[in-house]
Amino acid sequence: MARQGNSVWITLNRPERRNALSWELLRELQKALTEVAGSPAVGVVLAANGPVFSAGHDFSDVLAQDAKGIRELLHLCTDVMRLLQSAPQVVVARVQGLATAAGCQLVASCDLAVAGESAGFALPGGKGGWFCHTPAVPVARSIGRKRLMEMALTGDVIGSRTALEWGLVNRVVPDGELDEAVEELLARASRGSAASKALGKRTLYSQLDRPESDAYEIACEVMADSSQTPAAREGIASFLEKRPPVWPE
Amino acid sequence: MARQGNSVWITLNRPERRNALSWELLRELQKALTEVAGSPAVGVVLAANGPVFSAGHDFSDVLAQDAKGIRELLHLCTDVMRLLQSAPQVVVARVQGLATAAGCQLVASCDLAVAGESAGFALPGGKGGWFCHTPAVPVARSIGRKRLMEMALTGDVIGSRTALEWGLVNRVVPDGELDEAVEELLARASRGSAASKALGKRTLYSQLDRPESDAYEIACEVMADSSQTPAAREGIASFLEKRPPVWPE
Amino acid sequence: MARQGNSVWITLNRPERRNALSWELLRELQKALTEVAGSPAVGVVLAANGPVFSAGHDFSDVLAQDAKGIRELLHLCTDVMRLLQSAPQVVVARVQGLATAAGCQLVASCDLAVAGESAGFALPGGKGGWFCHTPAVPVARSIGRKRLMEMALTGDVIGSRTALEWGLVNRVVPDGELDEAVEELLARASRGSAASKALGKRTLYSQLDRPESDAYEIACEVMADSSQTPAAREGIASFLEKRPPVWPE
Repeated sequence: MARQGNSVWITLNRPERRNALSWELLRELQKALTEVAGSPAVGVVLAANGPVFSAGHDFSDVLAQDAKGIRELLHLCTDVMRLLQSAPQVVVARVQGLATAAGCQLVASCDLAVAGESAGFALPGGKGGWFCHTPAVPVARSIGRKRLMEMALTGDVIGSRTALEWGLVNRVVPDGELDEAVEELLARASRGSAASKALGKRTLYSQLDRPESDAYEIACEVMADSSQTPAAREGIASFLEKRPPVWPE
Repeated sequence: MARQGNSVWITLNRPERRNALSWELLRELQKALTEVAGSPAVGVVLAANGPVFSAGHDFSDVLAQDAKGIRELLHLCTDVMRLLQSAPQVVVARVQGLATAAGCQLVASCDLAVAGESAGFALPGGKGGWFCHTPAVPVARSIGRKRLMEMALTGDVIGSRTALEWGLVNRVVPDGELDEAVEELLARASRGSAASKALGKRTLYSQLDRPESDAYEIACEVMADSSQTPAAREGIASFLEKRPPVWPE
Repeated sequence: MARQGNSVWITLNRPERRNALSWELLRELQKALTEVAGSPAVGVVLAANGPVFSAGHDFSDVLAQDAKGIRELLHLCTDVMRLLQSAPQVVVARVQGLATAAGCQLVASCDLAVAGESAGFALPGGKGGWFCHTPAVPVARSIGRKRLMEMALTGDVIGSRTALEWGLVNRVVPDGELDEAVEELLARASRGSAASKALGKRTLYSQLDRPESDAYEIACEVMADSSQTPAAREGIASFLEKRPPVWPE
């Protein structure tokens, strides 16, 4: 975890284990995301050291557990995924190399994702052993149904260009330009009032998977209430006065 | 509002204010759409005069209102969006230039949309002031999640080709061919029995955001009941007799 | 219905009637899919003889029925669609020529679909007679909203390339290579433990159209329980031991 300007970079750092999500690494992620949520940072980058973004759960951990232990591990893992979405900051995945199983789930759970050309994505449980039931949850909400079925049932890797076409990632760039592309996208996605952005992100996730009329009820209330905030007043005033906004927070 | 054959063109006509959706313009839209709903027209085109399709809410109106006033304004605006979907006619957006905030919401709320190459779409509240909570509702239901997040969090404009790739619009044509393309698509979308089309549209919106099994319950009932209508009988008979249908209404 | 290795091919065989889904053909499909569900097969191919995949309901049947009869016909048809999804096997549509109305619904209801370049897809009720209310249900869950509206309201045919771009099919290949492409995709999608794959498919469909948090509750339980199955243990062990898995079933 490192501050970089207004942002925090959280970097998976078990390259020798292909950044497998061990109990320990998941607890560290949970702690880092909880800390970040309470910090004044406006953006988060989820990155990884080494040639692989993340291979998902650490099978050494998994093999040693009974169903009860696995259930706890999955609840911890699901909590990490939820923290990515509940964080008031904009969260961008920076993906090089393979992101598989719970690693692919991490990418699907971030608000935005930038992939290097070398990146690949898979739900390898589809090859026939332990099916990727939980990783499929956010992947299903990012790409179309037939494409989800293909990833989940075959377990095969899709390349970065296919991931872009299907809407699993927002950008594909040469690997050497990843940092620059991540920073550029995050700067645009996190500019302005942090309070406005945090409220916006929270409202998006709460309206997304409801019927449209319920979504409108939520969104209308939030939009009316937020119209009186300093950020909204400044956005509106600066627009009318044709000057750059000076955000209050 | 102008009749053109079987269709009605509703044209935003505040080009000097970038077709901003003032109280007055929204009330006019509400009135026009309510009138059209009760008319024998079979199609509606939502168009706009000037270089901008619509810049969304009129910030002069907004600045003068407290949260209660804004809530009323948003309920009026949401009602306009619902009228586009509840109208028995097929509604096509004809988009040139920018469609931003509630202007982008209008496009996302029409059944179909044709864009000129000059068109651009944005949820500019993402730049950091007053977040586009309500415009994001129908946009979220037209494009994928990562793409929604990008539009909503960055506030930046996407071009017409990107809008086509993401499924926010159905066609992109040179600006000079917009009228022709709109009329061609609307003619195909509104041909046949108006009663059948109106029932079809209503059923689509009511099944769309429900679980698949609930959607089937609705659709089976409607499909069985509608099998005995003159339009359905004529469709089936003309097909079996290998002749062009003569629609009863 | 024919066994081919580990798979079963179910082939619509009324080419002289454009494989229209008569009462009889639907009952045969229902019977075949019910039988297959209880069989040890690991994959199903839904194919069709002749130049047309399927033209949907047989209008000769439909014309003779009142609303009550049509309701029964639609319940039978919906049951066939559900059997495609509830089958423990991976089901792949093999589509040459036109797949229209309930024929298009068949393709949308299969887990995966491979189309020949000659394939076309339509919801022809949109031309103005008997609207394709029920076929639109699974099509709506495969492609975006504006694209659904276009197919459902115009009734026009989209080509195989468009179907691929929109996510209605997974592959497009020259017609002469259809069998090979279907077998290749099915082999990858059905390899591994059949029990694991069946549980995976069932869980996907049950989590797909629920809110994300509900989906996680389902998926976590299933994933924890399934971690102790012979297939999961073998998948994990073979990965850790860097050897090819030997699936237990």
